[in-house]
Order: sequence, then structure tokens, then C-alpha cells
Amino acid sequence: MEVRFSERANGLKASEIRELLKLAEMPEIISFAGGLPAPELFPVKEMEEIIQKVLEKDGRLALQYGSTEGIKPLREIIAKQRMAPAGVNVTADEVAITSGSQQGLEFSARVFINEGDKIICESPSYLGAINAFKAYQPQFIEIPMDDNGMKVDLLEEALKANPDVKMIYTIPDFQNPTGRTMSDDRRKRIAELAAEYQIPVIEDNPYGDLIFDGERHPSIKSFDKEGWVIYLGTFSKTFCPGLRIGWVCAAPQILEKYIIVKQGADLQSSSLDQRATALFMETYDLEKHIESIRGVYGKRRDLMIESIKQYFPADVKYTFPTGGLFTWIELKEGLDAAVILQEALKDNVAYVPGGSFFPNGGHPNFFRMNYSCMTEEKIVEGIKRLGKVLAKFY
Amino acid sequence: MEVRFSERANGLKASEIRELLKLAEMPEIISFAGGLPAPELFPVKEMEEIIQKVLEKDGRLALQYGSTEGIKPLREIIAKQRMAPAGVNVTADEVAITSGSQQGLEFSARVFINEGDKIICESPSYLGAINAFKAYQPQFIEIPMDDNGMKVDLLEEALKANPDVKMIYTIPDFQNPTGRTMSDDRRKRIAELAAEYQIPVIEDNPYGDLIFDGERHPSIKSFDKEGWVIYLGTFSKTFCPGLRIGWVCAAPQILEKYIIVKQGADLQSSSLDQRATALFMETYDLEKHIESIRGVYGKRRDLMIESIKQYFPADVKYTFPTGGLFTWIELKEGLDAAVILQEALKDNVAYVPGGSFFPNGGHPNFFRMNYSCMTEEKIVEGIKRLGKVLAKFY
Repeated sequence: MEVRFSERANGLKASEIRELLKLAEMPEIISFAGGLPAPELFPVKEMEEIIQKVLEKDGRLALQYGSTEGIKPLREIIAKQRMAPAGVNVTADEVAITSGSQQGLEFSARVFINEGDKIICESPSYLGAINAFKAYQPQFIEIPMDDNGMKVDLLEEALKANPDVKMIYTIPDFQNPTGRTMSDDRRKRIAELAAEYQIPVIEDNPYGDLIFDGERHPSIKSFDKEGWVIYLGTFSKTFCPGLRIGWVCAAPQILEKYIIVKQGADLQSSSLDQRATALFMETYDLEKHIESIRGVYGKRRDLMIESIKQYFPADVKYTFPTGGLFTWIELKEGLDAAVILQEALKDNVAYVPGGSFFPNGGHPNFFRMNYSCMTEEKIVEGIKRLGKVLAKFY
Repeated sequence: MEVRFSERANGLKASEIRELLKLAEMPEIISFAGGLPAPELFPVKEMEEIIQKVLEKDGRLALQYGSTEGIKPLREIIAKQRMAPAGVNVTADEVAITSGSQQGLEFSARVFINEGDKIICESPSYLGAINAFKAYQPQFIEIPMDDNGMKVDLLEEALKANPDVKMIYTIPDFQNPTGRTMSDDRRKRIAELAAEYQIPVIEDNPYGDLIFDGERHPSIKSFDKEGWVIYLGTFSKTFCPGLRIGWVCAAPQILEKYIIVKQGADLQSSSLDQRATALFMETYDLEKHIESIRGVYGKRRDLMIESIKQYFPADVKYTFPTGGLFTWIELKEGLDAAVILQEALKDNVAYVPGGSFFPNGGHPNFFRMNYSCMTEEKIVEGIKRLGKVLAKFY
């Protein structure tokens, strides 16, 4: 049986992370490969009560079809509780619900990218976004980062040199995979460049609330005067990922396209999950819940960084994330993190090799480590094991 | 602000049904335009209890990320309870969960269709599928139907004349929009032709369980020996559409592509909704629930057809659906159902003009009517009003 798939389907491969997550399920492995929130922090008891109330009050609506853009109370709460604190003053009309921000990423490529079009992104960037975009056969222009995020002077050079860029993709806060955060002046500059070059910016912000010290950074969209910035948000990292509730916040002219795309893609996101999320936000203080997540993840970050200092070879480099879920490890030139992973797995410890986070390839000497979904004991033990493995190569 | 969208996004328009559903929300309108299940039949009380149990037993899993293909207990139940009665003997490994069958439709185009590729479908066909497919810029070959569904002799001619057909799309049971059902011998023949011409068949079956008299028809996939038939199922018409739980049943080689596409599209469908659906199916007898839906819809079908006979001009043609949600009206040549709709709306009654169900256009003298989501009183009153409007044109 020889099936003729589309060209884009022929090009699809299962992602490295996906295959690794299978390993992570084996109980003997200490896996830093995933990116899961800590399930012990989920508000399970509160959700029992909330869903009970939703079904009692609006049961038929919660189980029936609804509008593609999502229920208005949830979009209002997002505008008020999530976008306003990010410095963005919008009404529910500029918010549409998506099934996680992954769906918003995929829709972004669908709305803006023709085959061969150029996408600018950070180097490295989020693997799930790269894979979603690749289905539309774009070219990627990678912009190097430093500890203040994407280098905007190099971004400007790339925009000058490539008038056919169609979209800029960035994760300004606690970036996946590097854990780095963009400085506020660069955020402002990106918003200015977007308007100057008339190019949409996809601001992907799943982690912004998970800041360990200080205040939330202003979003790039907060500096956006004309509507070139499309903000993708999600409750997956601050509430319950299993409900698959994310959102797009964009100017009406652009949001309309996302809504029509969503209609063809899946009609709408779960009515029940939307109503449960809205009622939770009306009933409980999400900020308080986020604070407890911050506390736990912050401790785990500390412990991971301390353990790296203690157990990794001295000249292994790492980022110091001020929030979010990940740190990013740089090995000396010539080493291949994918090869070393095979050794690490023999000692029952895992991470994600960094190569696939670079859309144009290369950079084998990096890997990503997650600390959010791991006990403190296992963090220390895992880093200790990994340190021994790395020592063989130094 | 001049935004450069992708070509496919430039071509996207809000669907006629979507705009009409907005009208349907006005309380004074009797709308036959929608396709909603009757919410008074939703098992609201049972779902309160079920979700309570899911959260008590597996709360953290129900709120956490899960695998892209969906949770195994649900896929097992679908194999056993939904596919086996359709004559298809598969394990959970040949089933993947989608967010409604709309997502399965969209993925089908993504997996098989390059720009310009040919899709064969019934004439007319489901508007939501046509719109989802159109985003991939295919050509459509429409195959005429009679009361036994797609004419397979004409299908074979089309396959002979077009060796570059990439996909056959069909709704064999109580088709949307016509309400017609394919005869069993034609189902068998389509499966044979698919193997002979090595072309995948997308068998879209949202309504098959809603048969008013007699037994469920064997699916096309039940005649499929090699794996050319991809079956799309959903719980939206037999359980709760708001949960957005559908599935793809296909040979592993094909299913794998759908799963990778889903990973990029939205990672997975709601963990909570999957677990609630699975536990409902384990706890309650869905067949009994479906029987009560059949009883209610069957009565509404009877009443709509009787009212049409009584109140519509004598030479207006209509189909007699033996199940499902729709009947299909044919006006005399020269009339335009979209124009007549403007008149009908003045008398507070609505339907969907049939033109947009024909992917290549034409056929203005048809419209679709839904009877599932309407009280018996309103069905009679609505048809009476519509009869008066039509009389002006006869």
C-alpha cells in the first residue's frame, strides 16, 4: 500500500521532544526533558466545585456548541485579568479563545505564511512553534540572542536586508528553550520596528506570569500603537494545561482571520472547559495561585543552578532564568549533546538536545533542562548523575 | 494599516452558516438554519456525577498535558463501542482523538492535499468540510447523488478520467445537507474502487447512529480490506458537542500522519473532556441515550415532512431522511433560495440557502432545513410561515 501524502505531510517527522517524553514515562529515568507544570499544584478540589456549579447553572450551554471566538465572559476576564497587567488595554472584542497557545502558533503561520516566505525568530526558538511553522514551508532567519534576549540591532539589519519577511516570532519572557528574558527597551524597539517595517510580531507569552523576583515585564504589545503585535497567551502554565485554553489578542482586522481559520480547524474550543476556566477566574484569585507556583518553581530553579555549579564541569555554561521553566546549557565546541544523551540515558537521566531548537540546524553543543516538574531530591540526584556523564567529555 | 496575509487567508470568508447562526440567536426568529443537537437531551445530571468522579480519582491527570493521540481508555472504548458496531474491528492503536470531526476533516486535507490536487465529493456536500478543504486550494470534482447517495458509476468514470485525484470525501449516512443515505452495495463498491485506484476515502460519519427505523448501516470502512478508508467519528451528535471529542480511525501508516499534524495543531484534545467522555461510556449505556435522541428527532422529522406536504407549494421537492438532522429542499429552476431567504427573514423564519454546499457554485434553487433543535410547535409554525413565503414565488 503506497499512500500519496501531501508534500507537507511527507516532510513531517515526530518531534524529538515527543519521542523523549516517552522515555520520561519510564519511572527509573530522571528526566529534565519535559516541560510539564507540576501537577501537585493543580487546583483539583476547587475545580470539582467549579465544574459542579457550571453544570448546575449552565449545564446545557456548557455541553452545547458555542461560538468560534469563545464565550464572552472568558474573553472579558482575559482582557481584564491577563492583558491589562501585561500593559495592554483591550476589550473582549480583541480576544479569541484558542486550544492552547500551540493552536495560536499554528494559526499564525496559516494566516501569514505562503510557501517560501521568511519568518524571523530567536536563535534558538521554541521547537513546537518551529514544527508548526515548518508545515507551511517557510524560510527561517535566526537572530542571535544575549542575556537580554533577541539582539534588536541584528533584527533591524535582517529587516533591512529582507524586505520580504512576513512575520517576527518571539518569546520575550523566560524564553523556551533558553530561559532568557528580553529587556524592556528591546521590547519597545521591536514594537517600533514592526510598525516601521509593517510586519506582524507574534509575541508568544506562556511563561510571563512565572517571574521569580520583581514585577512582570511589560509585553511587547504594550508598546504597540498600530496593531502589529499579535499576543498569544495561555492558562496552561498558570492554571491547568489539560483544559487546553489559550487565547489570541490582536487588532480586529487580524483577529477576524484567526477566527475564520479556527472555524475550519475545529469550530471552537471546549464549551465546558471555557466555562469552567471563566468561573474559576471569577471565583478564585489566580494571582494567589500563580504566586504559589512561582514559589515552588523558584526553589527548583535555585536548586538546579546550585547543583549545576557543584556537579557540572566548571566550563559548562548555563543561563540563569529569572522565571519560567527552563535553563539552557552550552557545552564546549565540538561536543554533541545528542551523542552524550545516549550516555546519560545509560545512567537514567535525560534532557533535550538543543539542535532541533535551531530551525536551520547546527549548534549540537547545547541542551535544554526543565526544573518545574521534578522533586528537589531528584533535581540534585539527576544533576549529579549528569555531571558524571559530562565529566567524561571534559 | 495594510497587513500582508497569506494567500489562503486572503481567500477566507466567514461562512454563510456562521452569519446565519447569528440570526438564529434572535428569539423572534424560527430558524431551521442551524445543525445543533437538542440540548434538553444532554445528560447534564450524569455529567455532574461523572466529572466529580474523574476529578476525585484522576484529578491531576485530568488537568495535566497528555499524549497527542488521546488517552488509551477512550480509544479502546471507541474501538469497541463505536467502531465494532459499524463493522470495523480495530484496536485502540488505530484510533486517535480529535477535537470534533471538524478537526479530522481539516487534517485530512492537510495530510493529502497539495495546491491544485483534486478532491472528489458528493454534490452537494458538507459546507464545513468544503471550507476546511478550500484552505488547501484543491480542485473539487462533484459527483451527483440520487436517493441512494453518491452515484458510484459516475464516481468510477471520474476516477478513470482523473488519475490525479488525491482523496474521495463522502458522508454516507443521512448526509449533510441532503439527509440522503448511501445504499450498502454502493458502500462496498466505493471501498473496492478506493483499493483499485489506490485513493484514500474520507468517510465522515457524524450521524450514522441517529437512524430512525431499522439497523445501523455498515460503514464503508467495514468493506475496506487494505486500509484506504479513513473513518471520522464524533460524539457531538450522540453525546455532548461542547466537549469537542471526535476521532480518526485509520491504518497505522496513515494515522501516524494525523497524529503528527495534531501535535503541531494543538498538542492534544482536552484531557478532562476525554476522561469524562470515557468514564461516561464506561458507566452509562450510550445506546440507550442514543435511542432517546432517535425517538425525539424521528418525531420532529415526521412533523417537518408532514408540514412541508401540507404547507409548501405542491411541486417543491424534498428528501425524506431516514435519520440524522436535515432535509433538503429543491425549488423549481430559476428561483434563488438566497433571495427568498430575505423575504423569509421578514416573516421571522430562516434556513440555509443551498448554493454554498456546492463547492464549484451554481444550484441556487436549493436550501437545507434542520429539525433536531426545535419544538414541535415551532416546526409547524415555521413551515407554515415559509410555505406562505414560497407561495409568492410559485
